[in-house]
Amino acid sequence: MLNGIFSPITTPFTNDEIAFDKLEDNLSKWNITELSGYIVAGSNGESPFLTSKEKTKLTEFVKKNSNGKAVITGTGSDSIKETITATNEAASAGADAALVITPCFFKNKMNQLALKEYFTRVAEGIKIPLIIYNVPKFTGINVEPETVIELSKNENIIGIKHSTENIPEISEIISGVEPGFSVLVGTASLLYAGFTIGAAGAIAALANIFPDACVKIFDLVNKKEYDKAKEIQMQLTKINRLVTAKYGIAGLKTAMDMLNLFGGKTRSPLQDIDEKAKNEIREVLTKIT
Amino acid sequence: MLNGIFSPITTPFTNDEIAFDKLEDNLSKWNITELSGYIVAGSNGESPFLTSKEKTKLTEFVKKNSNGKAVITGTGSDSIKETITATNEAASAGADAALVITPCFFKNKMNQLALKEYFTRVAEGIKIPLIIYNVPKFTGINVEPETVIELSKNENIIGIKHSTENIPEISEIISGVEPGFSVLVGTASLLYAGFTIGAAGAIAALANIFPDACVKIFDLVNKKEYDKAKEIQMQLTKINRLVTAKYGIAGLKTAMDMLNLFGGKTRSPLQDIDEKAKNEIREVLTKIT
Amino acid sequence: MLNGIFSPITTPFTNDEIAFDKLEDNLSKWNITELSGYIVAGSNGESPFLTSKEKTKLTEFVKKNSNGKAVITGTGSDSIKETITATNEAASAGADAALVITPCFFKNKMNQLALKEYFTRVAEGIKIPLIIYNVPKFTGINVEPETVIELSKNENIIGIKHSTENIPEISEIISGVEPGFSVLVGTASLLYAGFTIGAAGAIAALANIFPDACVKIFDLVNKKEYDKAKEIQMQLTKINRLVTAKYGIAGLKTAMDMLNLFGGKTRSPLQDIDEKAKNEIREVLTKIT
Amino acid sequence: MLNGIFSPITTPFTNDEIAFDKLEDNLSKWNITELSGYIVAGSNGESPFLTSKEKTKLTEFVKKNSNGKAVITGTGSDSIKETITATNEAASAGADAALVITPCFFKNKMNQLALKEYFTRVAEGIKIPLIIYNVPKFTGINVEPETVIELSKNENIIGIKHSTENIPEISEIISGVEPGFSVLVGTASLLYAGFTIGAAGAIAALANIFPDACVKIFDLVNKKEYDKAKEIQMQLTKINRLVTAKYGIAGLKTAMDMLNLFGGKTRSPLQDIDEKAKNEIREVLTKIT
Repeated sequence: MLNGIFSPITTPFTNDEIAFDKLEDNLSKWNITELSGYIVAGSNGESPFLTSKEKTKLTEFVKKNSNGKAVITGTGSDSIKETITATNEAASAGADAALVITPCFFKNKMNQLALKEYFTRVAEGIKIPLIIYNVPKFTGINVEPETVIELSKNENIIGIKHSTENIPEISEIISGVEPGFSVLVGTASLLYAGFTIGAAGAIAALANIFPDACVKIFDLVNKKEYDKAKEIQMQLTKINRLVTAKYGIAGLKTAMDMLNLFGGKTRSPLQDIDEKAKNEIREVLTKIT
Repeated sequence: MLNGIFSPITTPFTNDEIAFDKLEDNLSKWNITELSGYIVAGSNGESPFLTSKEKTKLTEFVKKNSNGKAVITGTGSDSIKETITATNEAASAGADAALVITPCFFKNKMNQLALKEYFTRVAEGIKIPLIIYNVPKFTGINVEPETVIELSKNENIIGIKHSTENIPEISEIISGVEPGFSVLVGTASLLYAGFTIGAAGAIAALANIFPDACVKIFDLVNKKEYDKAKEIQMQLTKINRLVTAKYGIAGLKTAMDMLNLFGGKTRSPLQDIDEKAKNEIREVLTKIT
Repeated sequence: MLNGIFSPITTPFTNDEIAFDKLEDNLSKWNITELSGYIVAGSNGESPFLTSKEKTKLTEFVKKNSNGKAVITGTGSDSIKETITATNEAASAGADAALVITPCFFKNKMNQLALKEYFTRVAEGIKIPLIIYNVPKFTGINVEPETVIELSKNENIIGIKHSTENIPEISEIISGVEPGFSVLVGTASLLYAGFTIGAAGAIAALANIFPDACVKIFDLVNKKEYDKAKEIQMQLTKINRLVTAKYGIAGLKTAMDMLNLFGGKTRSPLQDIDEKAKNEIREVLTKIT
Repeated sequence: MLNGIFSPITTPFTNDEIAFDKLEDNLSKWNITELSGYIVAGSNGESPFLTSKEKTKLTEFVKKNSNGKAVITGTGSDSIKETITATNEAASAGADAALVITPCFFKNKMNQLALKEYFTRVAEGIKIPLIIYNVPKFTGINVEPETVIELSKNENIIGIKHSTENIPEISEIISGVEPGFSVLVGTASLLYAGFTIGAAGAIAALANIFPDACVKIFDLVNKKEYDKAKEIQMQLTKINRLVTAKYGIAGLKTAMDMLNLFGGKTRSPLQDIDEKAKNEIREVLTKIT
């Protein structure tokens, strides 16, 4: 199931409330691409600023408007109980799987044993498959390859989004996990490198604005047309480092507005970017598209 | 109101569920001390592992059994909406004030402007006073003195728990905030140093097990008996660095069990400490008490 | 010997070469203060940008022009051999003691055992007493209290400059080290707090520009006039956080130029500060002096 | 010139002094491999623990015994003057190029402007070509792609050793630098991924013990035999993460002793590894070789 390019879709807001009409417009454009599915309430969906009810509504809405593509909802928090509840609510709302972030508040106590226990207990309590979300830059926590390999034996844990640039660790995970367990890279800057070492796919913010290019790299590597894949990658990396790596969600939403999608404002307290940043983004987009 | 020593009480569990009977026993012992109040669902209360409903129940229960001491509930999360809802639920359950942690998921985007906006909007939406919770070691975010000073002008923001060892910053905050705004240190290792520079009080994990000694330092500094205060502080620091700084909540609960209180197990995925660590704690406690 | 306020003097440059005439002028002003001594080739002396020969010349020059005040030279590097050689050269040039920084290149391998071995072997090979220089913000290494306490038993290790704001650790060191071992705080923002917990003195960048105020706090705390000491500290902290903490050596040199001393330019590749920063410094200095 | 696999050779010690006879033995084995050259006094050569004189002697000795392979010496320090002097001494001793680390003591002041100025001034003062050494895990400093690209225009700056796992940045550098400027990856775990995106070669600790396998991956990628290359990479990554990433130089020297080379002890204060670690290394080596 976890194969190809998934888009962690942004959440559109009007007056700080979710703008479902804008979301519908965006989905209608994404639905005709070759994207494998959507992540709802991921980091790029501004998950930390959404309420539980809003996440459930979003899941329902995207499922209804996904045209058969997979819908994966971000449901994790430090609390095992809350995560199980949130995941089962997402399941009822139509989510096909849950993306569950590592617990992280007590950074220096969340050792590999704690992580193993956390994911095992959550996986036991939920009705849909679990995808581990490893994002050390936000959490300060890294799930070590050995831990991922052991967790891959759990039937209800089907993959990992590895949001690092650590090719050696990703590679070690790929070579050690159970067959059928999917390793997904977490940034569009690592599509080519990730696919050449055997990653099953990607969840990449840039798929919000360049779904076709992302899918193209995936297809080219599968056809072993490495040089063409590398060429497209070089362009994507340049855009990605500016738009999403430097300016984050506000940068991505700005680019969406420039590319015939609805981006709009971020939700408070997340700040929008200034005119200078917008011009930088405009310039890099103009060069490419 | 925010004056003296507050205890961020631990949450007792039996079979991973809240043990209200044990909590009642602990409170009955703490109620006869000179503690100013209790923090419910703070970091030491394993807040990240509690559900919303459990936090509300805890607030109600502690309020009912607090013998008139102040009850402050930890209610913050990245989401302004969720924080307002959680705080107003805590208010209905009897909380006298809310301890609200800084938003922190998007670390490099939560600048001082974002923090100012966050606390201002939360303060406007809630029915009880707000205390800022600044704990960079867990969040990666620091509320700068200038920001605290500006926020202190908001009538519904009444204080800060500054969980750092940064005396210069704490000192600059004390000298700049509005009268009536309370600056509380966040560790028992900093009572003496904090009070000598003018801190209004402390929220200190060690107050769970040594409430009298913490209160004593507060009283001695107020009476300008610095040398005696320093002497007690030296002993507390030694214990505190081992029990809470090194071993965290599991260390604190272990010490509680050794000192005629109920500590019990931590909640999964937080791990308990091993026998060697327990012996270290036993040894340092034996020397002192 | 290690008692009171020491100034880590800046190194004046003209056309990127040491300006000994300017240094002589500065020293003539500092010599009439109550400073206990000078640190030559410390961090604030831009030690990393000086050659070995320059450090030796500086030591000789300052010794000759110190009017009897103590001269301490920064001589440490990762290499035990180089540190011994550099220290003995400093000794021959007149240094009374050496300030030796922790080795730090292989951060995650420089454990407490390595640090103990390093300082013990250096102390054995040198002809003047050693002062440990603990500055985690630059090195990523912290000498734990237990290690300092053990090293204090070595007769040729006479003190530590603890360049952190960690009052609990400083306090634990003070209470544990051998009599005669001096614990010095490393910033003017921590004079009052440090002296009230028993620090023997300070090595503080701000002593370059406000030697009298620094000495005054030391004297007042010794006379137990805590309130007056605290008042002066509050002013110093405000200046110090701006001039040295925010703008570093370039900020300090700028302030020197404004206060009738020679500051001048920093040495390449260290960059000078811009006009806006200079105005900020001018403003805070005008308010105070 | 900078093409293929370079070995950052370890420095053998007997009784804490350089053992040139052992070095000669090692070189005689490496000389018959397809390695492109040797790095003398790099991180893996325990450069921080060597004196200036020792580094010069090592350069002379290796040059004399290198059988025509390139000799590159690590010569950088924070000081521009010292770096120029050290580099020109290395040049006189026979070094073909210098590997110059970023200045790093004043971490938060070494911005891109300072780095550009540093490398430009050093490059102007030295008689042999300069290779930038970017190793954020040790220095806390990263040379941004834009800076590398600009520095690549300097005729005497011929390459960079990029000791990170950041494929997107490495990729952006490769696509932007002047023709003839070589980008080398800095770990054996990144050979395959690095070469597939166009890296010119590698300086990899593991080349001390597995030079042939490293060279093989280089050749296979050049011949576009990606699948075979990936297979060998998978094995190397497993070894590399244990031997050099986890246990560092002590781990590498231990492996050398097990593989018919002379590893020996590390130089104080660097600590050797314990028996348990040695057994771990023995086990992983046995499985593979």
